[in-house]
Formats: sequence, C-alpha cells, structure tokens
Amino acid sequence: MEKPSTRLRSTLDIGKAVLAKNQGLADRLREDFRQRGIFVMNVVSSPGSGKTELLARTLDRLSVEMRIGVIVGDLATDNDAARLANRGAPVLQVNTDGYCHLEANMIREAADSLGLDGLELLIIENVGNLVCPSTHDLGEDLRVVLLSVTEGEDKPLKYPGIFKSSGIALLTKCDLIDAVGFDLDSALLNIRNVAPQARILETSARSSQGLDDWCQWVRDAVAAKKG
Amino acid sequence: MEKPSTRLRSTLDIGKAVLAKNQGLADRLREDFRQRGIFVMNVVSSPGSGKTELLARTLDRLSVEMRIGVIVGDLATDNDAARLANRGAPVLQVNTDGYCHLEANMIREAADSLGLDGLELLIIENVGNLVCPSTHDLGEDLRVVLLSVTEGEDKPLKYPGIFKSSGIALLTKCDLIDAVGFDLDSALLNIRNVAPQARILETSARSSQGLDDWCQWVRDAVAAKKG
Repeated sequence: MEKPSTRLRSTLDIGKAVLAKNQGLADRLREDFRQRGIFVMNVVSSPGSGKTELLARTLDRLSVEMRIGVIVGDLATDNDAARLANRGAPVLQVNTDGYCHLEANMIREAADSLGLDGLELLIIENVGNLVCPSTHDLGEDLRVVLLSVTEGEDKPLKYPGIFKSSGIALLTKCDLIDAVGFDLDSALLNIRNVAPQARILETSARSSQGLDDWCQWVRDAVAAKKG
Repeated sequence: MEKPSTRLRSTLDIGKAVLAKNQGLADRLREDFRQRGIFVMNVVSSPGSGKTELLARTLDRLSVEMRIGVIVGDLATDNDAARLANRGAPVLQVNTDGYCHLEANMIREAADSLGLDGLELLIIENVGNLVCPSTHDLGEDLRVVLLSVTEGEDKPLKYPGIFKSSGIALLTKCDLIDAVGFDLDSALLNIRNVAPQARILETSARSSQGLDDWCQWVRDAVAAKKG
C-alpha cells in the first residue's frame, strides 16, 4: 500500500436507537425461551457456507429424538424452507424483504406463528451475511458460526465481530480442503486468536465428517437447557 | 414447510434519510469521475468469493497499460491491501470499523487521499457482503458481482438485489466446478433470470480461465469512458 490505512466513520450512528430497541425485544424473547426450557441457536455464515445442508443433516438425525422447530431467514425465495421440509420438524420461512439480517421482532412474530409449545430446540438460520447478524441479538442461547474451507483462512480476522460473538465455530466442506488448498492450521489459529471462547468442529455434510460430534454437542446443549 | 411464508418488516425505515444523503454524495463523486474520465468499478461479492485474487491478477496484467488506483474496504485488517501492493498501482485500505459496506463519504475521503490525478481506472473492492453494498451507490460506472461456484447455484435468486444492480457477473473458481458438483447451466439460468442486463464471464484465477476476456472487457470500458 502506498498510503497509510485510514479509518472512516459513516453517518449511521442513528442506528443505535434501533439496536437498543432490538435488544429489548431480544431480552424478552430470551426470557420466554428460558421459561419454556427451549435451547435456541442462531446459525450464521456467509452465503453458501452450508448452513442449510448442515441443518438438513441435523434434522435427519435429531428430529426423531427431540421436538425441533426451525425459522429460516432469507432476502427472497423459500428455497431453504423447502430443503428443510419433511424432516420431522416444522419450518417457517421469513423473507426479510431486502433486510440483511433477522431482527428480534421478526423472530417474535415467526415464533408465535410456528408455535413454541413443547419445543426443546429452536434453530434459527440467519440470512447469509458475515457482518450484520453479529450486532442483532435474537434472544438465542448461542450463536453458531460456519466457515467454509472454500472461503479462505483469513475470514475470522477480517470479520472478527461474528466470530467473537459465537460459542461454536464449524469449519464446513472439509472434504474440499485439498481441492481448494486450504491451510487448516492457519485457519484454526485465526479462529482461536479471534474467538478463544469458541469450540471448533471440523465438518463435512458430504462425507459426514464431524456430524456425530456436532449432534452430540446439540444433544448436550438441549439437555443442559432443560436442566 | 408447515406454515405459509410470512413477510415481516423491520424498524429500519429510518435508514432512508441516510441512504438519500449517500446518494447525493455518490452523484457528486460520479460527476467528478466523469470530468476526469476515470472508469470506476465497484466489485462486490460474498466473503471469500475471490475478489482480491481476481484483482491481483488484473493488476498484474493491466497496470503496465493504464494508470489504475485501488480502494479496498474491510471491517478489519489490511490483508487485502497487502495482497494488492507492489503490483503497479497505488492501493488504499479503508477499514469500515464494523460497517458492513462502503459508503460514498468513505470513497470521497479515500479518493482524495489516494489521489485521482491521471488515473484511468479506479477499482473499488467492497466489503464481502452480498446484501448491503447493493443499496449504497459509490459513484461507480458499474458494479461487478462475483459468484464463486463453491457458493451454490441459487444465490442469484436468494440475493437478487446485488445481481440486479450489476453490469457484469463473474463466476469465479470455475476450476472447482466438478469438485463441488456445481450445476453451471442452472446457475447461468438463475443469473439471466434475475439480471438479464448483466454480461456473464466464467473465470478461474487459478487456471486463468476467462481472464483474457475479463481484461479485454476492462480495457474496452476504460477506453469508452475516455471517449
């Protein structure tokens, strides 16, 4: 670079009031989920990192064991809800009409429509976006961030907010590590540096690598929430 | 899905005033670029789609022919500027400090810092995000959207705004089509349906597929802008 880096601020500070309103709604959602004993995960990643495929495989394995509900968010289409349908869990598609992330008021309305009675696990698949979902609490117990090996090792460093705020990080599409020349050690180091709190699992929906560990982690989390 | 799709609106209408302000700044930027005869492209995609690698290869080929300036946006790190340095063009990294896209005021300040005198081509590499950059004009002549074959065929349908607003769509990492089982015909159809205005190029920075066509397209665009 021939000039020093510069840090510039935009005019969007006006958004702080909107975020505060979202936080209030998220806090009330979290209390509702707590009283019902529902474990809630908010699944975030770039577009195309494999959220829906992971969740399809998760429903196939776990919906016979526990009552699961799914809320999926997208700007447009109900492709993801269609892919997750008929796997033993009710699925509700939220179209955000151009918004880049889910917000707590959307989850409140969607949860009421889906019905929470008797649920043990609520899975929220967020809009594919490594930035904006990180600042919008949905009342979840935990964020689950996915990083596909096709995206490169440096993404935790370049999108630190979403990794810092996640309790578990899943490397996805690990069957492609050699094909894309992914440096696994470097990626693991980057995740640990940015998000030392996060458990890391190496997975592939195609080869089933890591899915046993993932599903056991979900079982344990659901059991712990029920107390 | 067991319930009908629902469309929910968020409370972010307050952002319209911010967008209008951005548009005013972008219009002034565009007039400045026009007077100087600089062709300006705004390169957008998901994180990890290969924007920086494409631009590195582009600079290697074209910086001996024309005077190019580069502005790269990221939430954090100057990794991209470092990767693009020493390729014959000045590069300025903008750290957006958590913001999910570049805005016109950031480009104004960065362009002044970079210096526009004598430039023929200004390349703006936006933050990796398939949503938010679509609504923020930066005064560019054209948006260039990248879609990596690792992301799946349906992304144009799920993120229509950014494809609709782009003049050219580059499929990237085409050397991985077989490894990831990418359905090229379906992807091309989806892009054409959503963005019939967009020229489509199939590329791979690794194999150099399509880079001759891409660089010729850039040469033609730069020549046309100079008039």
